[in-house]
Amino acid sequence: MAEVPVLTEAQLREAVTLDAALVDAIEDGFRALAAGGVVMPPVVSMAIAAHRGEVDVKTAYVPGLDGFAIKVSPGFFDNPAQGLPSLTGLMVLLSARTGMTQAVFLDNGYLTDLRTAAAGAVAARHLAPATVETAGVIGTGVQARLQMRAAFLERPFRHGLVWGRDREKAVKCAADLSGSLGIGVDVATDVVQLVARSQLVVTATPSTAPLITAEMLHDGLHITAMGADQAEKTEIAPEALAAAQLYVCDRVSQCETLGELRAARAAGLMLALPPELGQIVAGAVTGRTDPRQITICDLTGTGVQDTVIAAHVARRLAAGPAEGGPGHVA
Amino acid sequence: MAEVPVLTEAQLREAVTLDAALVDAIEDGFRALAAGGVVMPPVVSMAIAAHRGEVDVKTAYVPGLDGFAIKVSPGFFDNPAQGLPSLTGLMVLLSARTGMTQAVFLDNGYLTDLRTAAAGAVAARHLAPATVETAGVIGTGVQARLQMRAAFLERPFRHGLVWGRDREKAVKCAADLSGSLGIGVDVATDVVQLVARSQLVVTATPSTAPLITAEMLHDGLHITAMGADQAEKTEIAPEALAAAQLYVCDRVSQCETLGELRAARAAGLMLALPPELGQIVAGAVTGRTDPRQITICDLTGTGVQDTVIAAHVARRLAAGPAEGGPGHVA
Repeated sequence: MAEVPVLTEAQLREAVTLDAALVDAIEDGFRALAAGGVVMPPVVSMAIAAHRGEVDVKTAYVPGLDGFAIKVSPGFFDNPAQGLPSLTGLMVLLSARTGMTQAVFLDNGYLTDLRTAAAGAVAARHLAPATVETAGVIGTGVQARLQMRAAFLERPFRHGLVWGRDREKAVKCAADLSGSLGIGVDVATDVVQLVARSQLVVTATPSTAPLITAEMLHDGLHITAMGADQAEKTEIAPEALAAAQLYVCDRVSQCETLGELRAARAAGLMLALPPELGQIVAGAVTGRTDPRQITICDLTGTGVQDTVIAAHVARRLAAGPAEGGPGHVA
Repeated sequence: MAEVPVLTEAQLREAVTLDAALVDAIEDGFRALAAGGVVMPPVVSMAIAAHRGEVDVKTAYVPGLDGFAIKVSPGFFDNPAQGLPSLTGLMVLLSARTGMTQAVFLDNGYLTDLRTAAAGAVAARHLAPATVETAGVIGTGVQARLQMRAAFLERPFRHGLVWGRDREKAVKCAADLSGSLGIGVDVATDVVQLVARSQLVVTATPSTAPLITAEMLHDGLHITAMGADQAEKTEIAPEALAAAQLYVCDRVSQCETLGELRAARAAGLMLALPPELGQIVAGAVTGRTDPRQITICDLTGTGVQDTVIAAHVARRLAAGPAEGGPGHVA
């Protein structure tokens, strides 16, 4: 029996980072999802109410990739009080030809963070206006930082804005982003100001009430809403979703149960079948056609992204040290 | 970040075997399942038709256990032609309090084999007649051998019978069982003879057509049907299921979609809600009341069993070398 490589989070941080190669791989994953042949079961979710915990399992088979991931994402919300992160987890890479275990990635959610950010980059690549002067993020966590870095890869904006409920965290996030992106990043006074001044906005919060309303929308705005990934979460008001000229899902079946589409449908809006990001990547559906359009991309996170990043890591490991040197992402 | 122990199949074979302690732990799991408080999502199943493969993921939270397992079971049916086993897989043990990864068991299905056999022992403990002179197994694989060892733990029978479609494999299985149990084990001429001579029968095949019919049933017979765990599989004819005085599921919601109950319901039989093994273990439902009764237990395999054996392994490892010395099971 061959040895199964088991990588720690530290080793994974050395091996893979948020870069164009990863974004390209994730874009290929969306293309494959649109092309058919992908097998992606519904997300399994188990609540452990006694400990304010939940665990999600995602997987997908993507034709053309030698392996597929089983991704385990626990979220335990009393952890921070014990000095532990809420979100942890691991991925297992299995051979798509034999089912044999190829690698175990004890990433504590690092690969999930990266593949989620990379999907934001794909959304920006295909939906944001060609020119973005200012990009704003609502949220101040790891993913807010990564999403701004992802957007910057595709649209090298000149100013950044951050807003969060906790101003101290927003100040820290803005300072971190200013340092990593090498541009000025300010704290917005409120969501209204942030949206008004930005051409690209990412929402990256666990909010259960809408943060962006229809009144805040303006010509030439793209929003990537990546916070909602459970039935009770929402960041965009149903009327705002309906007011956009183009609303795009990562996966319709997930967005209508876990994403922004759920609340909109519950409000009697958005009853038509929206396009998926992969269809736009593949050119099967037209994306942004005018710099003045308002576009919204709803990202719930797919098993395809997990399989793609696990295969990407395996390729990186097989190829030796990462081209870009050690990664320092989150 | 603490080191996560990663155990190989060889290390797991040293640490844990099929013994009374494991059967007791699995019995406790069935009791917990009946008591409520267990969270057990439906089995996730993903087919990879291009490579004649499938992968199942099972999990369950069991109150009172510190950890819960995520169990990944791939089955790739072209593997034997390449000299690889069809069924492999691994388990991950997560903390039920924090979700943090506690251990990775690269067991290649060994723990699944054990926990499946242990459920057979629990079924025999509660449903088989008190005295079993002869026990028979239909099937000649790893699980056929383990199920006979499991039955022997609970009902130390004096003769064994084996039947399989491949007589050569049946001869080998009988010889192996004779050696491991220290009793005479013969190859039956057919299923009719095997059932007629046995008081305890285990079916352990991937059959998609019934092997045991109503005509074969006789007073004082217990059958544990553990082969069917997918919608197309069945080992017991619907009329035989209906003819038993007591039919028991490991989990009704699984047996009616994956087990023997599915075909019986499709034939318009067995429409009432059957009891679960855990209810009998807990004394909430009466089990066998007469040595002449005919009883059937339908085992599809539950995430509870996976969580229980993973926690059992963790306890064994924490306690040091296994009491019984190195295990040599399959």
